[in-house]
Amino acid sequence: MKLDHVGVVVGDLEEAITLYTSVFGTPVTHRAGSEQLGITAAFLEVGGAEIELIAPTRSDSMVSKFLAERGPGLHHLAYAVPDIRQALSEAKSEGLELIDEEPRIGLHGVPIAFIHPKSVGGVLTELVEHA
Amino acid sequence: MKLDHVGVVVGDLEEAITLYTSVFGTPVTHRAGSEQLGITAAFLEVGGAEIELIAPTRSDSMVSKFLAERGPGLHHLAYAVPDIRQALSEAKSEGLELIDEEPRIGLHGVPIAFIHPKSVGGVLTELVEHA
Repeated sequence: MKLDHVGVVVGDLEEAITLYTSVFGTPVTHRAGSEQLGITAAFLEVGGAEIELIAPTRSDSMVSKFLAERGPGLHHLAYAVPDIRQALSEAKSEGLELIDEEPRIGLHGVPIAFIHPKSVGGVLTELVEHA
Repeated sequence: MKLDHVGVVVGDLEEAITLYTSVFGTPVTHRAGSEQLGITAAFLEVGGAEIELIAPTRSDSMVSKFLAERGPGLHHLAYAVPDIRQALSEAKSEGLELIDEEPRIGLHGVPIAFIHPKSVGGVLTELVEHA
């Protein structure tokens, strides 16, 4: 399984992009957002994998809750899988608790699904389908 | 800059290895530990980057403190750099607070250094020299 990206929650997206690009020289490959989730995000290339910087766009976003409870920092790990329905079925048969029983379309426009952190040693885990 | 590994703190290393290998099929590439730091670790290959599972070996380890305060989960991000002294010097000149002013030898036997999370948006950040 390939690491696709690391999700990092930040308070201010533009400040975080400036920090990462000035300190680490990591170019922004993609920007996206979700009205429904109340988030805006930027993906930075870090040699094969990506960093996804995620900021809230409203106070009732899940990301706002995360910021209030834990502060900015590491949020989730995402792995690329060739067939997300098969991967979800396997995860379920291993006894893992799925947050998304059915895949939904993520910020990259491809199917994604989250596995509950309590099933993966405290790590919120995302599967991303890359055909 | 290339993502080298993602550090994940776990309570029990063997349990975590079993979980990752059974669910994600990620092989263990390397095991290591540090008496001084009170940790034992295993590195798992995830397509270019690695997951470093880290468990404490004694109750006064920094990792025990992390577990007590935050529970198991994501701990740090590590980037590979060609010249760690130059990278540290650049980070310092950008105003980042270094945890290690001088590189020290990490679990892989190569020079590493940590940057304080408060300088990197809440993310404990490690530099790893890969010549």
